Amino acid sequence: MAAGSSVEPFWMLYGIHQTPEVSAIFESYRIGNVRAGDTKHLTSDMSDPYANEPKRHFALVPASAKPFNAELPPDVLIQNFITPNELFYVRNHLPVPEIDPKTYELEIEIDGKEETMTFTLDELKKMPKRTITVTIMCAGNRRSDMVKYKPVRGLNWGAAAIGTATWTGVPLRDILLQAGIDEDEEKYKHIQFEGIDADVTAKNYGASIPIWKALDKRGDVILAYEMNGVPIPRDHGFPIRVIVPGVVGARNVKWLGKIVVSEEESDSHWQQNDYKGFSPSVDWDTVDFTKSPAIQELPVISAICKPAQGSQVAVKDGKINVKGYAWSGGGQKIVRVDVTVDGGKTWHVANFDHQDTVSPPRHWAWTLWSIDIPVSDDATSVEIWSKAVDSSYNTQPESVENIWNLRGVLSNAYHRIRVGLKRE
Amino acid sequence: MAAGSSVEPFWMLYGIHQTPEVSAIFESYRIGNVRAGDTKHLTSDMSDPYANEPKRHFALVPASAKPFNAELPPDVLIQNFITPNELFYVRNHLPVPEIDPKTYELEIEIDGKEETMTFTLDELKKMPKRTITVTIMCAGNRRSDMVKYKPVRGLNWGAAAIGTATWTGVPLRDILLQAGIDEDEEKYKHIQFEGIDADVTAKNYGASIPIWKALDKRGDVILAYEMNGVPIPRDHGFPIRVIVPGVVGARNVKWLGKIVVSEEESDSHWQQNDYKGFSPSVDWDTVDFTKSPAIQELPVISAICKPAQGSQVAVKDGKINVKGYAWSGGGQKIVRVDVTVDGGKTWHVANFDHQDTVSPPRHWAWTLWSIDIPVSDDATSVEIWSKAVDSSYNTQPESVENIWNLRGVLSNAYHRIRVGLKRE
Repeated sequence: MAAGSSVEPFWMLYGIHQTPEVSAIFESYRIGNVRAGDTKHLTSDMSDPYANEPKRHFALVPASAKPFNAELPPDVLIQNFITPNELFYVRNHLPVPEIDPKTYELEIEIDGKEETMTFTLDELKKMPKRTITVTIMCAGNRRSDMVKYKPVRGLNWGAAAIGTATWTGVPLRDILLQAGIDEDEEKYKHIQFEGIDADVTAKNYGASIPIWKALDKRGDVILAYEMNGVPIPRDHGFPIRVIVPGVVGARNVKWLGKIVVSEEESDSHWQQNDYKGFSPSVDWDTVDFTKSPAIQELPVISAICKPAQGSQVAVKDGKINVKGYAWSGGGQKIVRVDVTVDGGKTWHVANFDHQDTVSPPRHWAWTLWSIDIPVSDDATSVEIWSKAVDSSYNTQPESVENIWNLRGVLSNAYHRIRVGLKRE
Repeated sequence: MAAGSSVEPFWMLYGIHQTPEVSAIFESYRIGNVRAGDTKHLTSDMSDPYANEPKRHFALVPASAKPFNAELPPDVLIQNFITPNELFYVRNHLPVPEIDPKTYELEIEIDGKEETMTFTLDELKKMPKRTITVTIMCAGNRRSDMVKYKPVRGLNWGAAAIGTATWTGVPLRDILLQAGIDEDEEKYKHIQFEGIDADVTAKNYGASIPIWKALDKRGDVILAYEMNGVPIPRDHGFPIRVIVPGVVGARNVKWLGKIVVSEEESDSHWQQNDYKGFSPSVDWDTVDFTKSPAIQELPVISAICKPAQGSQVAVKDGKINVKGYAWSGGGQKIVRVDVTVDGGKTWHVANFDHQDTVSPPRHWAWTLWSIDIPVSDDATSVEIWSKAVDSSYNTQPESVENIWNLRGVLSNAYHRIRVGLKRE
């Protein structure tokens, strides 16, 4: 991408690649050092593309600074069924673009047709709107559990790259019908989304979803302009983010600039060569990204958010209190969360503290759960496991070893937390 | 149910309950023996309700004789992507009814409305029809794997209570729209199905599905009158079986006599007190059937069908050949089958020998797979494991212990087969 010109802007943009491993590879190619006086002309295009990022809440723990990626401490995460905007996890692939809502336009293109449609923000806001409660999760949520078994490439997310908000916007279905797409469209297979965020070659973030999801009334895909009742904050896609309920965060494209109705999937890096699952035995020498489908609906997951790994927990009346979340993609509802402190000899069914009332296949929000679970009198520490079951009776795989994959995505094995026990 | 009259007809109908355990309980209530001469009047209504069952193929291995329940040997099962009618697994809850197609009528009732609609078989056949390829599976498939860990109540199915056919019939959606139900129906929540098969109190088999599944174009629910191009055989629901793709066999009601549009689920035993999943720690003293949802969409599953458990397998060029099927409910497609012979240290990706081309969420048929998998030179036996991944990236749980449930349903843990190795 930098052929013939300076490579430095890429280092600024993709700061996540500035690791000792990469430096070691480069060291072997070093042919000499540029004299101090000769470097002046290189600095001209080295302005920081991240200079105009929004302010973030101090509680967000960064997984990377540039681009900004951050999550909450898990115990803070589950204090609210609806995650406050300023505490919602941030997963940015590129710098946050600065967009003037007065001049903003969303472009709708149909492959093979020259004419396009455009909508201003005001025009979108005047259309019939819908508000839905949707949990969004990063494919890399709980990656840190996978890394413990074997290294992967990707941001080291804990269990909090997930959040729930009410989103208000225009059904994408309405826009597509208005653009002349038929309800039973057969020619076009995909809806591509392009973000306004771009790299130094002006290549935008992109993703796509199957067209049925966008056209189906029960798909509930909306072009959202409000998050929890206020305009979507800059970090979350101002002024428009497409909300694709039940589908991995990466397809919920922020700062939406363009929609393309197409026979093909998005050709973006993030659709084609990232966000896909592989067999545990596939490594970077054997991986073939064309062999796996792009992640869309996510599998069932749960996490223990309180107590924290390694903490000391008070035993009350022979029990300890455990809290967490569970969620499943594809509009499935959580029907049960099982918890054990004896390696599965005894499973206890958790209570649901908060669950949305919408029925599957349109149940888009997570379930918050808790349980007072008995521990044996002589135990000084226990390992707590959680597993969720969804309305299709899919459940989580037991161990991370057998679902490990080189990108560390889809890390939905039983959540396991070891804690010490304090007795009065 | 037999209050005031003879209990014998029930024993004839539910032959599956004639077990030593039940006899032992009854023995404790024995108050004496009826003299031989006094039993004559009891024999009057003791005709065998199973006297007029259809002839079955000799290859079907019965799990119970009355009612008839049978499956194929697994290696025979996977010889065909489309299972021949006479080899399709049979899961009957009651005697097979004898139905005259000339007088057959399907009744459509809407809760709270007096008028009903009826359709003769000829009328149904004259309506626009659809043909779809659908795999149907019993919730108890692979129950025998669960039993090895701890006893359960239910027929001891192997891995072949599953089959695939092309089904032709009338979309249920069309019938419902014709009956005046609105596409976005909100009052009614369920579609109940009643079979013509009945017990001695004339109580019919019954089940229900959520109404969205019946109304959604992508639900593909049809009232089928053909199975693989011929009238549906008696054992499989002649003249009409409702095909509910992606949903457990128990809701694909055979010998369909009545459809009820309702605010409520079916109140039948099979909907309310059977075909539900529970936590492994729930037993017959603590079970509460109102606490679990009726099984509808089934989770992802796979099975090794060849070689058979305990067999001797020829090693060729250091490899053994392994074959099986994989399937997932809810219209999900199988995207990968992983196989290991070293306890998960190395996973090998199986080849797909036959997979339907339809995309999710309308992928209703199973996938047949095979692999030549390397075994170590010094091994005299190996344990083969298979696990499937579907298009929502859900995968199978590892072990049966953590998904065990008292009814032995949803037995979709890794399939594990131990075989001996023969070398030339």
